[in-house]
Amino acid sequence: MKDAKSAKHAARATAAVLAPALADLIDLSLACKQAHWNLEGPFFSPLHALFDAMTDEYRAWYDEVAERLLALGVPADGRSSTVAAKSRVEEMPSGRLPGPKAVEAMTERVESLAKRLRGDLDRLGDLDPVSQDMVIGILAGVEKQAWMLRVQNA
Amino acid sequence: MKDAKSAKHAARATAAVLAPALADLIDLSLACKQAHWNLEGPFFSPLHALFDAMTDEYRAWYDEVAERLLALGVPADGRSSTVAAKSRVEEMPSGRLPGPKAVEAMTERVESLAKRLRGDLDRLGDLDPVSQDMVIGILAGVEKQAWMLRVQNA
Amino acid sequence: MKDAKSAKHAARATAAVLAPALADLIDLSLACKQAHWNLEGPFFSPLHALFDAMTDEYRAWYDEVAERLLALGVPADGRSSTVAAKSRVEEMPSGRLPGPKAVEAMTERVESLAKRLRGDLDRLGDLDPVSQDMVIGILAGVEKQAWMLRVQNA
Amino acid sequence: MKDAKSAKHAARATAAVLAPALADLIDLSLACKQAHWNLEGPFFSPLHALFDAMTDEYRAWYDEVAERLLALGVPADGRSSTVAAKSRVEEMPSGRLPGPKAVEAMTERVESLAKRLRGDLDRLGDLDPVSQDMVIGILAGVEKQAWMLRVQNA
Amino acid sequence: MKDAKSAKHAARATAAVLAPALADLIDLSLACKQAHWNLEGPFFSPLHALFDAMTDEYRAWYDEVAERLLALGVPADGRSSTVAAKSRVEEMPSGRLPGPKAVEAMTERVESLAKRLRGDLDRLGDLDPVSQDMVIGILAGVEKQAWMLRVQNA
Amino acid sequence: MKDAKSAKHAARATAAVLAPALADLIDLSLACKQAHWNLEGPFFSPLHALFDAMTDEYRAWYDEVAERLLALGVPADGRSSTVAAKSRVEEMPSGRLPGPKAVEAMTERVESLAKRLRGDLDRLGDLDPVSQDMVIGILAGVEKQAWMLRVQNA
Amino acid sequence: MKDAKSAKHAARATAAVLAPALADLIDLSLACKQAHWNLEGPFFSPLHALFDAMTDEYRAWYDEVAERLLALGVPADGRSSTVAAKSRVEEMPSGRLPGPKAVEAMTERVESLAKRLRGDLDRLGDLDPVSQDMVIGILAGVEKQAWMLRVQNA
Amino acid sequence: MKDAKSAKHAARATAAVLAPALADLIDLSLACKQAHWNLEGPFFSPLHALFDAMTDEYRAWYDEVAERLLALGVPADGRSSTVAAKSRVEEMPSGRLPGPKAVEAMTERVESLAKRLRGDLDRLGDLDPVSQDMVIGILAGVEKQAWMLRVQNA
Amino acid sequence: MKDAKSAKHAARATAAVLAPALADLIDLSLACKQAHWNLEGPFFSPLHALFDAMTDEYRAWYDEVAERLLALGVPADGRSSTVAAKSRVEEMPSGRLPGPKAVEAMTERVESLAKRLRGDLDRLGDLDPVSQDMVIGILAGVEKQAWMLRVQNA
Amino acid sequence: MKDAKSAKHAARATAAVLAPALADLIDLSLACKQAHWNLEGPFFSPLHALFDAMTDEYRAWYDEVAERLLALGVPADGRSSTVAAKSRVEEMPSGRLPGPKAVEAMTERVESLAKRLRGDLDRLGDLDPVSQDMVIGILAGVEKQAWMLRVQNA
Amino acid sequence: MKDAKSAKHAARATAAVLAPALADLIDLSLACKQAHWNLEGPFFSPLHALFDAMTDEYRAWYDEVAERLLALGVPADGRSSTVAAKSRVEEMPSGRLPGPKAVEAMTERVESLAKRLRGDLDRLGDLDPVSQDMVIGILAGVEKQAWMLRVQNA
Amino acid sequence: MKDAKSAKHAARATAAVLAPALADLIDLSLACKQAHWNLEGPFFSPLHALFDAMTDEYRAWYDEVAERLLALGVPADGRSSTVAAKSRVEEMPSGRLPGPKAVEAMTERVESLAKRLRGDLDRLGDLDPVSQDMVIGILAGVEKQAWMLRVQNA
Repeated sequence: MKDAKSAKHAARATAAVLAPALADLIDLSLACKQAHWNLEGPFFSPLHALFDAMTDEYRAWYDEVAERLLALGVPADGRSSTVAAKSRVEEMPSGRLPGPKAVEAMTERVESLAKRLRGDLDRLGDLDPVSQDMVIGILAGVEKQAWMLRVQNA
Repeated sequence: MKDAKSAKHAARATAAVLAPALADLIDLSLACKQAHWNLEGPFFSPLHALFDAMTDEYRAWYDEVAERLLALGVPADGRSSTVAAKSRVEEMPSGRLPGPKAVEAMTERVESLAKRLRGDLDRLGDLDPVSQDMVIGILAGVEKQAWMLRVQNA
Repeated sequence: MKDAKSAKHAARATAAVLAPALADLIDLSLACKQAHWNLEGPFFSPLHALFDAMTDEYRAWYDEVAERLLALGVPADGRSSTVAAKSRVEEMPSGRLPGPKAVEAMTERVESLAKRLRGDLDRLGDLDPVSQDMVIGILAGVEKQAWMLRVQNA
Repeated sequence: MKDAKSAKHAARATAAVLAPALADLIDLSLACKQAHWNLEGPFFSPLHALFDAMTDEYRAWYDEVAERLLALGVPADGRSSTVAAKSRVEEMPSGRLPGPKAVEAMTERVESLAKRLRGDLDRLGDLDPVSQDMVIGILAGVEKQAWMLRVQNA
Repeated sequence: MKDAKSAKHAARATAAVLAPALADLIDLSLACKQAHWNLEGPFFSPLHALFDAMTDEYRAWYDEVAERLLALGVPADGRSSTVAAKSRVEEMPSGRLPGPKAVEAMTERVESLAKRLRGDLDRLGDLDPVSQDMVIGILAGVEKQAWMLRVQNA
Repeated sequence: MKDAKSAKHAARATAAVLAPALADLIDLSLACKQAHWNLEGPFFSPLHALFDAMTDEYRAWYDEVAERLLALGVPADGRSSTVAAKSRVEEMPSGRLPGPKAVEAMTERVESLAKRLRGDLDRLGDLDPVSQDMVIGILAGVEKQAWMLRVQNA
Repeated sequence: MKDAKSAKHAARATAAVLAPALADLIDLSLACKQAHWNLEGPFFSPLHALFDAMTDEYRAWYDEVAERLLALGVPADGRSSTVAAKSRVEEMPSGRLPGPKAVEAMTERVESLAKRLRGDLDRLGDLDPVSQDMVIGILAGVEKQAWMLRVQNA
Repeated sequence: MKDAKSAKHAARATAAVLAPALADLIDLSLACKQAHWNLEGPFFSPLHALFDAMTDEYRAWYDEVAERLLALGVPADGRSSTVAAKSRVEEMPSGRLPGPKAVEAMTERVESLAKRLRGDLDRLGDLDPVSQDMVIGILAGVEKQAWMLRVQNA
Repeated sequence: MKDAKSAKHAARATAAVLAPALADLIDLSLACKQAHWNLEGPFFSPLHALFDAMTDEYRAWYDEVAERLLALGVPADGRSSTVAAKSRVEEMPSGRLPGPKAVEAMTERVESLAKRLRGDLDRLGDLDPVSQDMVIGILAGVEKQAWMLRVQNA
Repeated sequence: MKDAKSAKHAARATAAVLAPALADLIDLSLACKQAHWNLEGPFFSPLHALFDAMTDEYRAWYDEVAERLLALGVPADGRSSTVAAKSRVEEMPSGRLPGPKAVEAMTERVESLAKRLRGDLDRLGDLDPVSQDMVIGILAGVEKQAWMLRVQNA
Repeated sequence: MKDAKSAKHAARATAAVLAPALADLIDLSLACKQAHWNLEGPFFSPLHALFDAMTDEYRAWYDEVAERLLALGVPADGRSSTVAAKSRVEEMPSGRLPGPKAVEAMTERVESLAKRLRGDLDRLGDLDPVSQDMVIGILAGVEKQAWMLRVQNA
Repeated sequence: MKDAKSAKHAARATAAVLAPALADLIDLSLACKQAHWNLEGPFFSPLHALFDAMTDEYRAWYDEVAERLLALGVPADGRSSTVAAKSRVEEMPSGRLPGPKAVEAMTERVESLAKRLRGDLDRLGDLDPVSQDMVIGILAGVEKQAWMLRVQNA
């Protein structure tokens, strides 16, 4: 009985960590597309492809997080209103985006996400090793993206 | 000179039709995922797959619309804040979604979109046959989705 | 000389068994499509896919039967008028088909076909072991379809 | 209210154009197979392959037309009896088909279909641009087939 | 010397945790097939496919566990007699399985496995981080299965 | 009436032949995996691959047999307890298996199965030519395996 | 009779629009290859790939246009002498092409083609909706290319 | 004891039927290649492809027959000297082969093979149903080839 | 120093051999397409496919030659005006092409090319073994094409 | 005139070198199959696969040689009687082949072929660089096979 | 501020653990190739393939480690001079390698690497869970390789 | 006897040419990876991909060279110590590599290799035409790489 209760408690506490990450990841998938579309300048071609590949990664990651929430017995909320309200990702600038500015904008947002995910690891380790392992996997990918963006404006 | 002006004018007028459709299509991709995740009931398995396939279609369609905007010389805006503010898609209910309720919710939203897109066709025909042809193609797909959903609650 | 004659005779007798099976199989491929299109109700999605997969099987089987006829030196007749006139498959109901009714309609027609094909086996064994082996292979598939349909209304 | 009524009216009128095209396309798929099987003469090999590829095109096209009918809210009727009764495709000759005769038979039937589909375009344009666009796509393919057949007996 | 001893000790202790998991996973692969075959009712089609996909996952997981045992220097025992004797998975009911009953039976067995695997994590963490990481990966998949089954009878 | 009865009787009698074959085939799939995992000696690499490929064949064959049982209207029983109790396959030795011993163990078990399946052919021919044809197909594969194993210890 | 005449007339008039487009599209495929080969500068790698992908598009498009001409009963002329004489595409500069100059040269040529194709739409709509629909499809692609090139020198 | 003896006897008797078929099938694979290479005339292209596809079938069939011999415990002999000495296939003409002559030559050889294989069926049925089933499968393919060749010179 | 000079000299001399071959190969790719489109007669189908496959070979070959020029430090010139002016390929006849005439026209052009390429081999061997090896590879393909065409009118 | 004569002479002389190589390569493809089938001993599995892969190489090589003969205007002769009479490959032993003996037999035959092909290179270089280049390519593969066989009995 | 400092410190400390692992993994990829090439004896075929597959794993692993270093902001050093100087992998013997000796050499080197990687886990857990998780994944693969090698000389 | 001696002598002399090329090619594969990892600047994305593709080419080439050495009967030495000691490739700079510097570094190393390989051709032609042909093939690829790099800093 007690076990079930504490399992439920841990699930809810885990969900409280994952839900904002879900909003962030969905928001970053849209931010990537925003950069993918409005790019300008001589680096258009490879950056257009890079932002598309990054979008695919965000889509895979947010699906994984949302389905982990459900596995924990908690509904996922990925509606645009929730994303707009809860995402901690800074809003992308509107309109045309010269390459270096697009890279800079995405670098900042990706590095911020990496910091937030890294900050969640210990708490997740206490609550649910499966969610922790999933977030470590996502963080590895996010930090790889951050490197690839960061060195472009180095 | 005049030609260039009127071409620019037509492009802007076309963009004014396409931009809200872009917001709607992005929003529906998130609505589909919302249904994909929070489904319940004995129809889970096929509906889970159906909503995923529909999401893929919305993603392909909004990419097409956004890139048409750029081809017309107008930036695309697919940021979560814009989508939340501009989308004409009714907000999905939060939390668990029994199959029939999910089907009903998606049927309404898909049929509304179909009506809006159909309403845009004449104006697009006057402004830009390329955009009109693209929207006809999307509408064909949207109306096919509407049929497949509608008959499930028939 | 006699051998050639008796071979010709056996070929014609075999063809007399295969020709009606050809009409039946073509007719069932159209019956499957009829169900695939006009389905209704919550089981739409998996049944829509199932009837499509069954159509593919009927198409492969009737091609095999028709080409066996030619290999036996006898023309194949798969024209719509012939199918409509010669097929022993009961006509499908027109209009919308709620899932269980579609399953029931197809179960009956598939089981009837199975019975007819099984009834042909001995005669084919006497006439042409190649045709018999082909029909055994088709019958195995038809009886598998019958099982998958039958248990859905169990 | 009125809008819904006129939409329903347009759907029915569109369906009245598409239903006979459905019967024709199914019938031609069977006519192609008839030619595919009963071919004779030195051109057997490439014509056998050509008629098979054409069959695949007819199957894809009639599926598209039938599903458009459903999207318009109208059941599709592709039963063999309906096809035999309603198809406007001239019946194929029975029995063996020497290559040039097969090509000639198919050329006539394909060209007739093309004429009928072309004759439907204006009416469809008034009723339903989605159906019109679909038929234009099919017509493009049918006229390509007609060319490839016609020049073989040139 | 001591190191080698303690490594051997840890390997044996790890194997003592993994061996029953191996039996459970093999047994569940057979339980899934049992449900895959004997299903009945209108949900046959999607459940038949779901149980097959789950079987594939169990087969991949038990191969992974068995090969980890070998990597630890301990033989794996996956013989039917061992599985029947050692598996902690409740025996599946024999005979026909109506869809909801099949879902219920599998939900219970999958959730029990998840609990057992989760209960092994701490001990594995002390003994062998590689095995722990492997079991976390399997547990993530098992809990995802549990969600997908559980909501079907919700 | 009588026909239906005798068909039911034949189905049951066929099932009485197939059910033990099902247990044997499942058991051999586990025996193959047992050998695949616990192999030792310089022939490890090719034998490890061979036993895996053989496992895939047993899995495909037992699925075919089980689904034939269902097509005959008889439930399939592939639970570990049933397999352990009913299988006529001699238990594999536990623990490490030097290559030649593994080959010898599998040769004996595969050849025994071949003998049993061959012994069933006449009875199946009387009862159900579809099942007979299926078993002939499996026997062809089993005898091919037996050859490939046998010559390794020649 | 009159119908056939007017159809022939429309076909010829359509061909008069398509033939120069054929020359232009072939010429642009060669212009793309010219840029693909003689590129220089740090943007070599992505531009080399982009011009190759564009070449593939031109090849697909001119094949489509040429085969439409044949479908209309008019021979296609894509010989180098005709292309050199009839193409309205400005000759590419010879020799090495620094990236930005290559992008500029292609932008101008692609935008000119877009203008010409757009100018043909109304006339084609009057003559042959199939050809119009084909050109709309090509124009959509050409304007997408123009966008991707234009923003690189923005 | 007696069983083993009679099994051995049946195996040898079966091998006595299969061995000449092996020589024939290898010889026909070389005859097909001979025709594939030395073809002449306007039908070159499709016949060149047809003879290649037929070669692939002969290669698959003779591999199947040879491995069945081994499964029966009898060595296979497919050496060129054995094929040249034992094959019952009439030697192909050397040098250039005009299309119709190539078709005629292959038709005769394929039809002769079909007759010989058909003549073996009863004996094989008495000796070894597995070998009989294999030869029925090959015969089905050989008779299909015979049809496709025969009608070309019809 | 001297080495660099003589290397440059050899590169230029090699380029002087390759540049006309580039024009020829591009021209033949257009000639193939010309035949592919305007074919007539009963051999349409296989010849239409053959000329398309040949076009693909010419495209691959001219890309290889052009990129070799660049590797030698010399710009490639594949513009339509250059091809029209420099190509040594005889102009194709315009308009419809009955099969045998198309085969004859292509045979002559392909054989002429083969002669020219063969005539370049010695000089290339003195100047640049890499270019010689490339031309030998192309020549092997060209002579294979010549054979396949030549025998069709034999 | 003289050129054509000397070209014809060179073609015939080249063919005189290639024809025996054709017989050898066909013979080795059959020798490989002979070893593939009749193998025995613990190395069965990898050698069975190796001899199959080698057969594929011989088949590809002899097709290349035969088609080169045709390109030179000389018929190819790959009939079993010719192969048996002309091949310089030592006859394989009949019956069962223990692994090491099979490897030894194939090593000898492959090394002999390599020597013969190497001996042809100079003459081919004088006559036809295309054929020489082809034989160098084949020789590279043959010597690689020789290495892989030779070291197995080292 | 402090956080950033300590993050940088942790990154450097992590890099100090990963850099030697990078050198080891590159060195082992070359050691595997060394064994792949110089193998001798009857086990050549499967070992040749095994060492190639292992090389692929080492290449994937060292790419992962190097890119993790970059993600941590530290350059990767995989130059041959660094590998030769820093790798802790014992130098492979030069020259021919009989199978068992190759297996023994690789077993020792792979087991040593496993020990070193296992020794790094705790320190990595304190510094960077992402790197720890990556190394656990690699270690799982390395220990699987060690098992597969070890049992071959058992 | 003498022949065998001189063949052995030629093999050793050939090996003396190939061995240093092996070291160079392995070293360049590591140099490419070094650039692939430590790149910086706006060209990161396409250069990161380019250096990876080049690495794949070097790996394929050095495998080819090493296996040629073995075919010549000479062991291959690709150990890191040998590569570090024998490679004639200049050591890459350590640490971060801005794009243009990376391109420059690789251009120099690739051009040097090309020169060395070209310098080996005559000697190889005297010793072993198979090795010469292989090196010509590699040189073609290396010079293509050199072009693609060189023009980026043009």
